[in-house]
Amino acid sequence: MALADDAVVCSWDAVRHDTNDLLLEHCARQQSRAATISGDYERLWQAITSQFEAGGKRLRPYLCMLMYQAYGGKDYRGVLPVAASLELLHAAMLMHDDIIDRDLVRHNQPNVAGIFRKHYAAITDRAEEAEHLADAAAILAGDLLLSDAYQLVHASTADADKKAKLTALIGDATYSVIAGELLDSEAVLYPPERAASLQVIELKTSSYSFLTPMLAAAVLTDVPEDEQQRLQDFAKKLGLAFQLADDLLGVFGDSAQTGKSVIGDIREGKRSFLLQETFKRADEAQHTTLVSIVGNPDCDETMAQTVRTIMEQTGARAATESLMSDYAIAAKEAFTGLNIAEEYRAQLDALVQKAVWRAA
Amino acid sequence: MALADDAVVCSWDAVRHDTNDLLLEHCARQQSRAATISGDYERLWQAITSQFEAGGKRLRPYLCMLMYQAYGGKDYRGVLPVAASLELLHAAMLMHDDIIDRDLVRHNQPNVAGIFRKHYAAITDRAEEAEHLADAAAILAGDLLLSDAYQLVHASTADADKKAKLTALIGDATYSVIAGELLDSEAVLYPPERAASLQVIELKTSSYSFLTPMLAAAVLTDVPEDEQQRLQDFAKKLGLAFQLADDLLGVFGDSAQTGKSVIGDIREGKRSFLLQETFKRADEAQHTTLVSIVGNPDCDETMAQTVRTIMEQTGARAATESLMSDYAIAAKEAFTGLNIAEEYRAQLDALVQKAVWRAA
Repeated sequence: MALADDAVVCSWDAVRHDTNDLLLEHCARQQSRAATISGDYERLWQAITSQFEAGGKRLRPYLCMLMYQAYGGKDYRGVLPVAASLELLHAAMLMHDDIIDRDLVRHNQPNVAGIFRKHYAAITDRAEEAEHLADAAAILAGDLLLSDAYQLVHASTADADKKAKLTALIGDATYSVIAGELLDSEAVLYPPERAASLQVIELKTSSYSFLTPMLAAAVLTDVPEDEQQRLQDFAKKLGLAFQLADDLLGVFGDSAQTGKSVIGDIREGKRSFLLQETFKRADEAQHTTLVSIVGNPDCDETMAQTVRTIMEQTGARAATESLMSDYAIAAKEAFTGLNIAEEYRAQLDALVQKAVWRAA
Repeated sequence: MALADDAVVCSWDAVRHDTNDLLLEHCARQQSRAATISGDYERLWQAITSQFEAGGKRLRPYLCMLMYQAYGGKDYRGVLPVAASLELLHAAMLMHDDIIDRDLVRHNQPNVAGIFRKHYAAITDRAEEAEHLADAAAILAGDLLLSDAYQLVHASTADADKKAKLTALIGDATYSVIAGELLDSEAVLYPPERAASLQVIELKTSSYSFLTPMLAAAVLTDVPEDEQQRLQDFAKKLGLAFQLADDLLGVFGDSAQTGKSVIGDIREGKRSFLLQETFKRADEAQHTTLVSIVGNPDCDETMAQTVRTIMEQTGARAATESLMSDYAIAAKEAFTGLNIAEEYRAQLDALVQKAVWRAA
């Protein structure tokens, strides 16, 4: 029985475990309904289930439940569906993001498109058709989870007024993350120096990933408007610090530690602030070199190392680290102003430390 | 002032007009919010708006409002957002359906993918990239509208209990239409005789298009469970009659009257009951002919006429007409059992007539 006791400060592990239980129960229910319709529909739900089983940190549910308790909430079990609904929304967005990014793997497992591409390839020898239909299955899977995010809010014990506010919150979160997703997807069409990288961070990380879970907790605990404003300020800075750190790790990190390739971002030409600064600051020769490597599918470690050197020579790395550090300090300051129960302060502080000082 | 008076039996034109007003107001609000984020996001909302302006019968909102009044509902203006939310959901599904069907035109106008393909093609000369990103924009547009369908329910004057039921109803509708969409998209991988054509009709037409709007009206007017069962029976038969008629019209109709090509369905190899029956009943020679024409992008009027002849020779046309007629009669019977106000009976009857006897 891993369900966290209401009296105990919740741990990330416990929230992840409880959220996973709830998500898998939800999927099992939907899958057995689907089985009564058709084996093909059941297969779609199986593929969705496998994505939840494959992994994921459940950061958003954890943030939601931690802040819920930090604001004095006592009905852990009753509001857990709200935390899980944020994860359903996130899974929906990841499924559609994977289609846009042409990714077939998530958490080291085939994602929905990956699973269906293999399934359809066994039925037809028209590879292009199999790929297209696999993308279609992933579009539909994302739609199901986006819709179910709204359903799970109603499975909570929140009263009607809070459910209405939470529904509006999910709407705002969707509106915000889609804006970020659009700007991010279009960025490849423009030179890196033109990317709206900080704005994308605000939309996809600050607002959607950090603010939404904390505001959900605030709604559930009737936190007053001025504290919600403080949360907004805190989330903005925390999100920026977090994502700048993430981008630095994606290029200069230790892949043994992060478990992520440190070539991928350069190979894809990810429009990060780091890359944007590098292009802005490059002289003509450096610019020519960057253009030949960044976004080049053949980029190897030697080529990536050339880009890293330019990032250092131009001062782009230092500028990114400095901005990250500024936001991290600002986030810590905003954090001290939050009106949360003392016993949760250390836990949130640890999360902030982990989020923003990882690259240090 | 076209807003229908509560005292007057609502006309389809009035509902279409009022729904459009509400949808365009919603889009205008979202678009001006988007403009504060970025011109690119504003462009996405412009493209969405243009789809609503391009056309659409608003059948689902009409069915919802007609049945709402037929069950004695008096707050036409207050519940109109519920009817409009069904149209938002439908628009979301059409946007994703267009990606799956590789369609770039809807209501004789470029759809979201069509608009963005042109926009991106002006920025990049990589046509494949422009197409992929245009599909991405359409995926995101659909997500926005699916999410907003849930938001509009909350803009109605329905009480909290009804909003919860309507939220569940939208969830069921999404679950059902996605199942139909999956089966339909996968059907091209299998021989036509294996298509689950009647099941797809039940999921996409009976349940999603007919039952959902009527059940929304039932929820809004506290219609008892046994009447909801009758609605389910009525919707099932009406949906089947409607779609079988639609499929017949798509092949044997008069395109001057329907405004639709009568070659398209054969050229695409649409997995209709009519086509399924034709393949099932064909002898070896007919089967070979069918395989060479159905789904062939070069299919012209002469080839289509060959298929039509086989549809008649095999008795597939007659069998489809007969099944349509059976369901139409059954729908009429189920209709007489509905417990609706007399003055609305003629109006609904006209709708049923129009839906099912069009091919006659």
